[in-house]
Amino acid sequence: MLGPTIAFDAMGGDFAPTEVVRAAARLSLESTLQVVLVGDEPILSGLLAQSRHNPERIAVHHASQAIGMGEIPAIALERKSDASIAVAAKLVADGVADALVTAGNTGAAVLACRQSMRLLPGVKRAALASVFPTERRRGGKSDPFSLILDVGAGLEATAEDLVTFAELGSAYARVISRNPMPRVALLSTGTEEEKGPDEVVEAHRLLRTLPGIDFVGNIEGLDIPRGVADVVVTNGFVGNVVIKMLEGVSETVLELARYAYKERLLWRMGITMLSGGIRQLKRVTDWQQYGGAPILGFDRVVIKAHGRSREQALVNAGKVAAKAVVANLTGAMGGQAAWPEDDVRMAAEG
Amino acid sequence: MLGPTIAFDAMGGDFAPTEVVRAAARLSLESTLQVVLVGDEPILSGLLAQSRHNPERIAVHHASQAIGMGEIPAIALERKSDASIAVAAKLVADGVADALVTAGNTGAAVLACRQSMRLLPGVKRAALASVFPTERRRGGKSDPFSLILDVGAGLEATAEDLVTFAELGSAYARVISRNPMPRVALLSTGTEEEKGPDEVVEAHRLLRTLPGIDFVGNIEGLDIPRGVADVVVTNGFVGNVVIKMLEGVSETVLELARYAYKERLLWRMGITMLSGGIRQLKRVTDWQQYGGAPILGFDRVVIKAHGRSREQALVNAGKVAAKAVVANLTGAMGGQAAWPEDDVRMAAEG
Repeated sequence: MLGPTIAFDAMGGDFAPTEVVRAAARLSLESTLQVVLVGDEPILSGLLAQSRHNPERIAVHHASQAIGMGEIPAIALERKSDASIAVAAKLVADGVADALVTAGNTGAAVLACRQSMRLLPGVKRAALASVFPTERRRGGKSDPFSLILDVGAGLEATAEDLVTFAELGSAYARVISRNPMPRVALLSTGTEEEKGPDEVVEAHRLLRTLPGIDFVGNIEGLDIPRGVADVVVTNGFVGNVVIKMLEGVSETVLELARYAYKERLLWRMGITMLSGGIRQLKRVTDWQQYGGAPILGFDRVVIKAHGRSREQALVNAGKVAAKAVVANLTGAMGGQAAWPEDDVRMAAEG
Repeated sequence: MLGPTIAFDAMGGDFAPTEVVRAAARLSLESTLQVVLVGDEPILSGLLAQSRHNPERIAVHHASQAIGMGEIPAIALERKSDASIAVAAKLVADGVADALVTAGNTGAAVLACRQSMRLLPGVKRAALASVFPTERRRGGKSDPFSLILDVGAGLEATAEDLVTFAELGSAYARVISRNPMPRVALLSTGTEEEKGPDEVVEAHRLLRTLPGIDFVGNIEGLDIPRGVADVVVTNGFVGNVVIKMLEGVSETVLELARYAYKERLLWRMGITMLSGGIRQLKRVTDWQQYGGAPILGFDRVVIKAHGRSREQALVNAGKVAAKAVVANLTGAMGGQAAWPEDDVRMAAEG
């Protein structure tokens, strides 16, 4: 059985197109996925010729332009209508591919999806969701991850947007993390319902009576690394700061460890013995492992890989995208299945 | 020579009034400060009688009401005009005391100050500033601390407010941390000047040409624990989430260490050897050591101690308040000296 078709924005990201092509080549050999590489055809075909791959599983779709990481999304997309991200988003919107993966400019990806895809019923604003490691282990697999959204698809969020994020995040945790009833919390300045900005207070009021969501109330910054909630809801500005801080924490711990290393012989011995544990900590806080963060709210599966993604991270992003398609993520969020019902059942059974 | 007079909101905080009275009693014996305890006179005098203290250095000023930690500030202050925080703020505004220390409700403290004190010239919104430990060591004392503001005096901030926070934070770091030219940064979603919410983009533009400030541009969440800037400027909602997350980080590291402890004999030995280093890390991230966070923007010195403060933290808060008065913090921020010029000179020389 053939797997879903994933459109890769081959020109997006710090190491595009080389690492994107490598990832696609590996996926063509090691998985059942179909890959469409979207970008400069001569360059992509040239790179592909240098990598061992299965030509029956990879297609190249030409797009003559590319958007850089530092470009202003609205201006760049207007000037470059044939940008790889715009063309790739359209291929997915039109059903030529089942999901989109990009390591490029986040704002441009969100805007390109808005231009060609539809928002799910009731959704006014898409959200970028990201997992982060916590103290608490959850579920049968002792999974230490929580989900936080929005982490930067937008910057602001109304009370309505926050409620939508709660629903999207909850559905994602149910379908992808197989958590049957994820605990959802609003990030605020205090646990009391009247604490926080107006839109958070109003979202709290709305979520308290919303069916189908296990709303546990407000949490504070302190509760994030503790893992008090499975899904943390906030606006894109706050979420972006939070997720990038968590990215820095493992580094800071390693730095403090190095500092201790120099201080005392006993500590130095301790650090040496602990190095396996520290490596594990680094692994757990390493985004390369996760492959990518979903952009939720559109009627298609969209995975945003980290801008610094290399081959392995992009391979993982492709697999996450395929998993979301097969598990019918968009269907669980109130949209249509991105994948034929029969195939979903077969994939689930097999 | 007598030190400055500090008004303590004796009824504010989780362990008020007992721990506030204990702190005042200790300060009366161990420092040159004068203390005014503001709150229920019979209760305070009764507690004072149980603690060894110097009666010449402590006065009790009666206030019949108190505001709880969970009360809504505006409503509570309107209903309780004789609340200890309101009376204490007025004593400081009127010059009866030189500085205010409270461990009570933050919102009520800010509002009480607004009602009786004046904002400094050009300031429209006060900010709560807090220090946090970073990887980088700075200055002669190898100080690992950066300052972040606002962390919860308000929730929002206009571009103008953010510029004011930059000026207030820079002045505080110069005067209190003796950092002659602190590096000031805006917290945003990217280092590029066009990244982030409108008010951050506009504040960036204004700060680039502002004299007297070493503006290093935008930083991201990742840069906070690294200590890239000496003063981090953001709105009260984001700052509150950030500072509480940092509070949780030491706990998370300890938890991960405990987890490792159970896993492997080698790790267990490593942890045992490292325990001194972990204790040091805990100490460095422990707010009890710092005593309190300044509320900046008023023409008087105001120190907000943590709600969970006990005797030692409140003693430290009193000392920080006195240091700010003697160093003429409000004068450095464009206001008038809170302390006679001659005495400032004497204190600086002696």
